[in-house]
Amino acid sequence: MLNEMQVSTKGLISVFTGNGKGKTTAALGLVFRALGHGKRVCFIQFIKGKWETGETKLSGKFQDLLDFHTMGRGFTKNSSDPEKDRQQARTAWDFAVKAITGMKYDLIVLDELTYLIHYNMVEEEKILSVFLKKPADLHLVITGRYASSRLMENADLVTEMKAIKHPYTSGVQAQKGFEY
Amino acid sequence: MLNEMQVSTKGLISVFTGNGKGKTTAALGLVFRALGHGKRVCFIQFIKGKWETGETKLSGKFQDLLDFHTMGRGFTKNSSDPEKDRQQARTAWDFAVKAITGMKYDLIVLDELTYLIHYNMVEEEKILSVFLKKPADLHLVITGRYASSRLMENADLVTEMKAIKHPYTSGVQAQKGFEY
Repeated sequence: MLNEMQVSTKGLISVFTGNGKGKTTAALGLVFRALGHGKRVCFIQFIKGKWETGETKLSGKFQDLLDFHTMGRGFTKNSSDPEKDRQQARTAWDFAVKAITGMKYDLIVLDELTYLIHYNMVEEEKILSVFLKKPADLHLVITGRYASSRLMENADLVTEMKAIKHPYTSGVQAQKGFEY
Repeated sequence: MLNEMQVSTKGLISVFTGNGKGKTTAALGLVFRALGHGKRVCFIQFIKGKWETGETKLSGKFQDLLDFHTMGRGFTKNSSDPEKDRQQARTAWDFAVKAITGMKYDLIVLDELTYLIHYNMVEEEKILSVFLKKPADLHLVITGRYASSRLMENADLVTEMKAIKHPYTSGVQAQKGFEY
């Protein structure tokens, strides 16, 4: 059991990975909870433009506390212009570095960052070295499939979201307001 | 691949289970996203009083859309008064039934409902029969460990949150604003 002596204000590095639903959604839940405590939050989306739908409408309510950035889309393994994608990924990562080292936030979500490592868009070593420089009380949340073993070694908390059953298998389409 | 013909407005029954972090948090993320779309949400917490901290401060911002209810605490396997606990669980479930059948909400989260089934607080059959009566467009999200196989059979989407690495093992205490 934990006791008082073990209380720490250390900011955790948390990873939500796996093939199941709930990775970005769990990060959003942490954002929601942190905002409730008056924490300053930055949400950086490295791949998809999910924030263009429901969440953007919320950001106005928290404009003093919540910044979010959609940094690009489509740098996948089937890209038609891999060099352009790589450049975009690096620009996105440079932006994240500034956020991580800038002392402005209590929580930063690096949504789908794992793909940058998985598809060799940004060097893993470069990313991990920035984590070592983060302010001690800053929480980082990283989401995405294929989290590398070195990333997981450098995290404090790793949860695998594992798909047990998925509605697409029974022909149900993505639901506006719930999945995007 | 899905096509237009398969689009459905069916409300899904989603289950977040497993021993890892992110179950309630993913549900909170769905709440956050749904509120952004102007959906009406009810969050019913069957066990812990997590909502008494960060989230309650947010509810004021969404008072027209978000209702939440903490229905009790402490009905665990080590209870000193199991009959009282059972009564409390049934009262909580009766409240949930009204919410589910009341046509007032677009999304209802039944946080930690799985324990009511796991500890035989409320009959599984009773719970599953209410799910069959839910309005077709209502989304239900159920969280908690030990989701029963019958519950999972009756769900559209099941994700297992699996703990790969947990900070408590390295002596880091729960973080205000992030875990509660």
